[in-house]
Amino acid sequence: MTYKDKHIKLFSLNSNLELAQKISECAGIPLSKIESKQFSDGEIQINIEESVRGYDIFIVQSTSYPVNTHLWELLIMIDACKRASANTVNIVMPYYGYARQDRTASPREPITAKLVANMLTTAGADRILTLDLHAVQVQGFFDIPADNLYTVPLFAEYYQSQGLVGDDVVVVAPKNSGIKRARSLADYLESPLAIVDYADDDQKRENGYIIGDVKNKNVILIDDILNTGKTFSSAAVIAKDAGAMDVYAVASHGLFTPGAANRLNAAPISEVLVTDSVKTETPKPDAIKYLSAAPLLAHAIIRIHENKPVSPLFQYNKAAD
Amino acid sequence: MTYKDKHIKLFSLNSNLELAQKISECAGIPLSKIESKQFSDGEIQINIEESVRGYDIFIVQSTSYPVNTHLWELLIMIDACKRASANTVNIVMPYYGYARQDRTASPREPITAKLVANMLTTAGADRILTLDLHAVQVQGFFDIPADNLYTVPLFAEYYQSQGLVGDDVVVVAPKNSGIKRARSLADYLESPLAIVDYADDDQKRENGYIIGDVKNKNVILIDDILNTGKTFSSAAVIAKDAGAMDVYAVASHGLFTPGAANRLNAAPISEVLVTDSVKTETPKPDAIKYLSAAPLLAHAIIRIHENKPVSPLFQYNKAAD
Amino acid sequence: MTYKDKHIKLFSLNSNLELAQKISECAGIPLSKIESKQFSDGEIQINIEESVRGYDIFIVQSTSYPVNTHLWELLIMIDACKRASANTVNIVMPYYGYARQDRTASPREPITAKLVANMLTTAGADRILTLDLHAVQVQGFFDIPADNLYTVPLFAEYYQSQGLVGDDVVVVAPKNSGIKRARSLADYLESPLAIVDYADDDQKRENGYIIGDVKNKNVILIDDILNTGKTFSSAAVIAKDAGAMDVYAVASHGLFTPGAANRLNAAPISEVLVTDSVKTETPKPDAIKYLSAAPLLAHAIIRIHENKPVSPLFQYNKAAD
Amino acid sequence: MTYKDKHIKLFSLNSNLELAQKISECAGIPLSKIESKQFSDGEIQINIEESVRGYDIFIVQSTSYPVNTHLWELLIMIDACKRASANTVNIVMPYYGYARQDRTASPREPITAKLVANMLTTAGADRILTLDLHAVQVQGFFDIPADNLYTVPLFAEYYQSQGLVGDDVVVVAPKNSGIKRARSLADYLESPLAIVDYADDDQKRENGYIIGDVKNKNVILIDDILNTGKTFSSAAVIAKDAGAMDVYAVASHGLFTPGAANRLNAAPISEVLVTDSVKTETPKPDAIKYLSAAPLLAHAIIRIHENKPVSPLFQYNKAAD
Amino acid sequence: MTYKDKHIKLFSLNSNLELAQKISECAGIPLSKIESKQFSDGEIQINIEESVRGYDIFIVQSTSYPVNTHLWELLIMIDACKRASANTVNIVMPYYGYARQDRTASPREPITAKLVANMLTTAGADRILTLDLHAVQVQGFFDIPADNLYTVPLFAEYYQSQGLVGDDVVVVAPKNSGIKRARSLADYLESPLAIVDYADDDQKRENGYIIGDVKNKNVILIDDILNTGKTFSSAAVIAKDAGAMDVYAVASHGLFTPGAANRLNAAPISEVLVTDSVKTETPKPDAIKYLSAAPLLAHAIIRIHENKPVSPLFQYNKAAD
Amino acid sequence: MTYKDKHIKLFSLNSNLELAQKISECAGIPLSKIESKQFSDGEIQINIEESVRGYDIFIVQSTSYPVNTHLWELLIMIDACKRASANTVNIVMPYYGYARQDRTASPREPITAKLVANMLTTAGADRILTLDLHAVQVQGFFDIPADNLYTVPLFAEYYQSQGLVGDDVVVVAPKNSGIKRARSLADYLESPLAIVDYADDDQKRENGYIIGDVKNKNVILIDDILNTGKTFSSAAVIAKDAGAMDVYAVASHGLFTPGAANRLNAAPISEVLVTDSVKTETPKPDAIKYLSAAPLLAHAIIRIHENKPVSPLFQYNKAAD
Repeated sequence: MTYKDKHIKLFSLNSNLELAQKISECAGIPLSKIESKQFSDGEIQINIEESVRGYDIFIVQSTSYPVNTHLWELLIMIDACKRASANTVNIVMPYYGYARQDRTASPREPITAKLVANMLTTAGADRILTLDLHAVQVQGFFDIPADNLYTVPLFAEYYQSQGLVGDDVVVVAPKNSGIKRARSLADYLESPLAIVDYADDDQKRENGYIIGDVKNKNVILIDDILNTGKTFSSAAVIAKDAGAMDVYAVASHGLFTPGAANRLNAAPISEVLVTDSVKTETPKPDAIKYLSAAPLLAHAIIRIHENKPVSPLFQYNKAAD
Repeated sequence: MTYKDKHIKLFSLNSNLELAQKISECAGIPLSKIESKQFSDGEIQINIEESVRGYDIFIVQSTSYPVNTHLWELLIMIDACKRASANTVNIVMPYYGYARQDRTASPREPITAKLVANMLTTAGADRILTLDLHAVQVQGFFDIPADNLYTVPLFAEYYQSQGLVGDDVVVVAPKNSGIKRARSLADYLESPLAIVDYADDDQKRENGYIIGDVKNKNVILIDDILNTGKTFSSAAVIAKDAGAMDVYAVASHGLFTPGAANRLNAAPISEVLVTDSVKTETPKPDAIKYLSAAPLLAHAIIRIHENKPVSPLFQYNKAAD
Repeated sequence: MTYKDKHIKLFSLNSNLELAQKISECAGIPLSKIESKQFSDGEIQINIEESVRGYDIFIVQSTSYPVNTHLWELLIMIDACKRASANTVNIVMPYYGYARQDRTASPREPITAKLVANMLTTAGADRILTLDLHAVQVQGFFDIPADNLYTVPLFAEYYQSQGLVGDDVVVVAPKNSGIKRARSLADYLESPLAIVDYADDDQKRENGYIIGDVKNKNVILIDDILNTGKTFSSAAVIAKDAGAMDVYAVASHGLFTPGAANRLNAAPISEVLVTDSVKTETPKPDAIKYLSAAPLLAHAIIRIHENKPVSPLFQYNKAAD
Repeated sequence: MTYKDKHIKLFSLNSNLELAQKISECAGIPLSKIESKQFSDGEIQINIEESVRGYDIFIVQSTSYPVNTHLWELLIMIDACKRASANTVNIVMPYYGYARQDRTASPREPITAKLVANMLTTAGADRILTLDLHAVQVQGFFDIPADNLYTVPLFAEYYQSQGLVGDDVVVVAPKNSGIKRARSLADYLESPLAIVDYADDDQKRENGYIIGDVKNKNVILIDDILNTGKTFSSAAVIAKDAGAMDVYAVASHGLFTPGAANRLNAAPISEVLVTDSVKTETPKPDAIKYLSAAPLLAHAIIRIHENKPVSPLFQYNKAAD
Repeated sequence: MTYKDKHIKLFSLNSNLELAQKISECAGIPLSKIESKQFSDGEIQINIEESVRGYDIFIVQSTSYPVNTHLWELLIMIDACKRASANTVNIVMPYYGYARQDRTASPREPITAKLVANMLTTAGADRILTLDLHAVQVQGFFDIPADNLYTVPLFAEYYQSQGLVGDDVVVVAPKNSGIKRARSLADYLESPLAIVDYADDDQKRENGYIIGDVKNKNVILIDDILNTGKTFSSAAVIAKDAGAMDVYAVASHGLFTPGAANRLNAAPISEVLVTDSVKTETPKPDAIKYLSAAPLLAHAIIRIHENKPVSPLFQYNKAAD
Repeated sequence: MTYKDKHIKLFSLNSNLELAQKISECAGIPLSKIESKQFSDGEIQINIEESVRGYDIFIVQSTSYPVNTHLWELLIMIDACKRASANTVNIVMPYYGYARQDRTASPREPITAKLVANMLTTAGADRILTLDLHAVQVQGFFDIPADNLYTVPLFAEYYQSQGLVGDDVVVVAPKNSGIKRARSLADYLESPLAIVDYADDDQKRENGYIIGDVKNKNVILIDDILNTGKTFSSAAVIAKDAGAMDVYAVASHGLFTPGAANRLNAAPISEVLVTDSVKTETPKPDAIKYLSAAPLLAHAIIRIHENKPVSPLFQYNKAAD
């Protein structure tokens, strides 16, 4: 199926071509031709091989490892599109690198997530579309429209299809900062909630324990970014020690840094579920399961381009605070 | 004691003159003369009665009720200072109005906390000093230096002086979004942690229950903004039902909207502790206790002016996420 | 009659819903749905209940009393529209609050009218449409297109219909700063001109006298803003003392602060004519007469949206200076 | 006398070197060395022959004829100073060219006075000091500090020294837009006020007449810009026809375009008083009298540099409007 | 032939009306009506006599002598168009004044070419179209789209038509900075290359000599700007001294400052070829030959308006560096 | 020797710590403490271990391989310094990555060198100090002060010390775009000039030949960036074929991408001279010789901080164009 509108073009940069191709297929918009290469001195040269003059350009780029290169590739692409008179430049960034550096936690720290927003805007981005931002406040780092899509509904649908619902399941936030994401999934599954807390809260992950009751329940651990796997493997052990039956882990973005696969394989986790927001060459755990975010992203691109509201069918449960 | 430096001036606008006077005394910097009045048509006219040319100006203004008037008074003051050639204009905003509108929770919502930041910056603010922001990410809404001071150490010191420490106390987050603040106080008091959760998470505050164990313990409920008192009174009842002994409530900012005092008086709460960040004419609960944030703010102002690091003696416990 | 164009939406905020409804009727564009409310702590929450993505949005808001609240409501609405991807955001501000604070008259004064312009522009306004600005130079406070419509032709047409024309009438500027507006109306009515001057010009309105001849003539006093009524009542007495027959007063914007109605009732004024640019709950003088500016504003909105020149049929008489 | 402060440098560009030299003498600040020349193709090349790095730079430039060249010379100088790391760049512009294009009087007109402000600010100006702006609202065209000095006190002092005070004198606005300036001078001289009005107000200056009484009085006509001399010569004839005795004319800025001298010589004007804000090669009327604004400007420069308030001893009479 | 699109309007300012008319004819877009005049005090007043609201406006203006006036005329026109709600404002600037001041060659020099870019952008230009910029890096002085068209292909076509091709011709850069332009023409003509070098490189043009072999060859000297004619006349003598046969000179922009014609007439140059980018009243050399750039510019305007790529048929030979 | 001024701090990021240490020693300013590390997911975390509040911060960072990482490290450091209230943030960038992407050479190309300038400025840089920019016009990509130091005098002094001066030496531009750098060195050495030209100019480096005479002369090839070594090795062969005696090569920045060392070893080049602007782990040619730019950079830093003119003793020869 081909999307008929003549005024939109979709480009993929180098971070996650597979996802871009799936988005292209879901949306019915072919990927436009581009060559982006690095010289031996590390500099990126982009050659856009089709006219962009007057088009609404959507650029798919997750700013995952190597994040600095992927960010510069994106900034250069934006610059090229603006100088070549694109009508609008829209960033589709399923994984937003540096999102965790979103505040000055200790003296003289940068707020790199805001710096990224400023760089994208100065380069000429007109809009950004993200997937499950680490903190939703990052939307406010932008003055251009910033639409953030949620992954919890995707995960809820999956677990429902697996029968993991109701009182036999406990949704567990594997650290105390992730409780709102856990609360949302628990609502979808109509399951109770628990939290892994660490008495010292000093990142050493010692003295962890569960607040809430997981005894003889299946546990779903939920987080946004799966990076080293330490959070999940530690929480899984704690859950098991507290009497949990099977432990499932789900995260929106699977970075899987080196060592993560081994760590997760060694942990008592039955399945590790992530979206395909990040493409990585590193080993994955044996129990890996990918759910594609492409249909959701494609849907949003089309609605944005057609000036229809992006009120996703599935929406993150807005809690009061 | 008078601060010797000739290049700093401290002004108070109309939202919280008492706090400004205390800051003035703590810092040894007299309040400079200003007249700010409203005409019968509601327009504010500010008359700065001393030269500001070349000075570092610090303006104390909490943007509490009536928030829109207090914000415009502040913006107009900034404009006047810039046009009158102040060297720098520094905002001391102990309570940051609109801080909770920090993301687009449902379609077509503004991000008013960012709008406030943009307005202050465009008007000419060079720096902002805040106290316990609702979400620390709001720092990133600014590209000017934004220092956020924490209140948890103040509260911890107070409770320690009251003997409310250790395993006889449980620090309770009265709703699931406030867990990091509770975790920080628990660390200071070396006490365990619990959370009030609501099964539906639909703002109706029905079906609340505690995750964690408060039986036969004294409970300290902690939140950042005490507005209607509903969160605290509901959580206190839930804690009592779960077997808690005395229940204490503490919040950084006491707005006490009409009805809050009655609601809190009716709840099983032994003491309501807040800072003096907000001045309000509405009734306070009988068990009210104010701790002044003036020394902390005065200390920060002096250190900023003297180009010393603002690494407060007491710092919020930086948790990993 | 319904305007056919699908790409325009018209919203009214809370300052003057009646005027917005009349504009809606004149233009044939229904008012779009919006809920804007204030919480108990004074914060405004806006809920736009229709999609604005891709539309040209026109927002009707006079920034009259309470001006600070109405300004923030407008800024928040602009922010919401921009983040929700409106194509353009156009402000229809029949009464421009703070317009009189347009210069630094004494040391360390703000220029609040410019501050308002900067705030609107930073929030994201793309265009502003005003009605009889206090000083036309305020147009230059904007770098976005700013169209200013004149009310003198409306008033001239009305007085012509009443037979108040020619040499039996003298148009009188009730203070020396308003002479150009008086000159323009005199041109339309083909009547002579006079001025009320105050020897001390110290706002005490003592020692006033008329320059020019009003003896045995009907007098029309003209001003832009009718606020406390002092200017008109004082000028009416002076005119009467100088031998005037009937005295009429006309102003573009009727603020009628408390006390104004009594003051005007006590003055020898036969009729007080204003447009409906401002809605106010305060008492009006008995001799009040409203002329609606809605047709003029509706006409301008349509012409702007259709990219036709906004050269109103009736135009303010451009005098040389 | 030499000003001791080492951190200030004063430069003159080419529009009014004589005035700059007088300012230099009054302030005790020598003129720094600069070469500014035009190539045969009209391009300006500026060679600043002293270091400006770290200095507060004051640049004297009236943007009088040829205004476009003088503006570019100024913009280029600002650019050079900023790139050479001047601490601040302060513009001393006694005559502000294009000041009369301060609003959109007819469709599709530019607001060139605002454009000038934007250009100066973008080029890097940190402050502007002007002399009797055509409309004081032009201050609000800037977001940098803009100090406007008044000339009326200078003129009042002069006329007082000539015995032209009290009831024997009438101050006359030679056209209806200049009434506030006339009102201010009348206050200083304790004299009555009158206005020249034109029935058609169509710039043809026909059918002029005086509102007010000048019979057997000495008349002082006051305006801000003396350009072609038509306004003054026409008003003088009207005043004479109305029975005036001697007629004096005073303006802040004497442009004297070709033909002005002859026109003024032919009019019944006893003396034409202007400041030296503008240097012009064209003929002057025989009855010309120059008052230097240099002491006032020098005084302001020193006070600005020393961070003292620029509340001039002589201040324009702030009238209510 | 008339261009059908209703959304584009073409205006000419005063620097080169002939070229604008040719562009108009080539593009089939009539010149829209405008009156731009200078007052006796040098100020420019522009009266756009057609609506521009919603149109894509193209403004033809070479910023040649008098460059400062032509620049201000352009800035004022941009301001007028933006305030009158033009959809886009596109500058067609065949000759870019101040282009040679593109770097800080000695201390405290401005970079006036960048200043021009900043002024145009701040005034509101959305795009610029230039012809053979002195240095292509000036494109990067803009963040708006900047298209630069090349003249070498035009010249190559002409010389080919004259039989000046191949090994009988040597293309000579008349100074060492122009070698890339010479290299490009040499490629088109398949001719060898030589360079005029000056031992001292001190602008005195003494001790010049040729690097390369021109003996018994026809020589084509190529430069971008023909200003005083000194570069060409000196190079022509050097070429002759080195044994050259006929010498031709070609430049993109013929400024012909006073004296240039005589100097070129006296030199051994058979023909002086330039485009019509600059209109000048000064004498031209007898051997002058104009090639019109109008078709190339018209072609680019149409392609820009139709959102087609501006990849000119004839493109400057991109050399590696 | 320690530099006494207390208000300056010097930091080194990770691209060239050796050079930073030499600059530190030459300037007498110790390197301040900083930790900058990359996480396993590639994100950079900077921990500034000393207060920067109120200091003038100088950051040494060459943006050489890996350029994208080094750029982000720099941007993050700037952000951290601004948020921590540094007085000024000054970039010392001896090698400016992406400098060659300074224009749109073919359709839809970015101008990455300008993008870099925009990113640095938006992040908060107040000044930049560079060394021998590829094109001096890149200075104009900045609106902050940009000082560019020249290396030719360093090289000239070295060759003079080796006796490589006068008519026995020919300075050769190894490609036609580098002629101005060659001309400058030739002036210093009082030697003649020649150029390597390629008939096709198609980057294939075929058909190269020398314009000018090198027979029986020692040749110095000069370029700014030594990247792959192809330009030098090809030019050396051509020079030898044309009868040159010894061939020397000199470049400001030695990138030495993999393969460069072998290529240069195989070429008839007696010595390869570069500055230490770039630190690289790749092999160097056997005949490598490093000259340190540290004294020159240290000198400039001190002069900038002391507000003395940065008119280097050695200045690039400003040629006319």
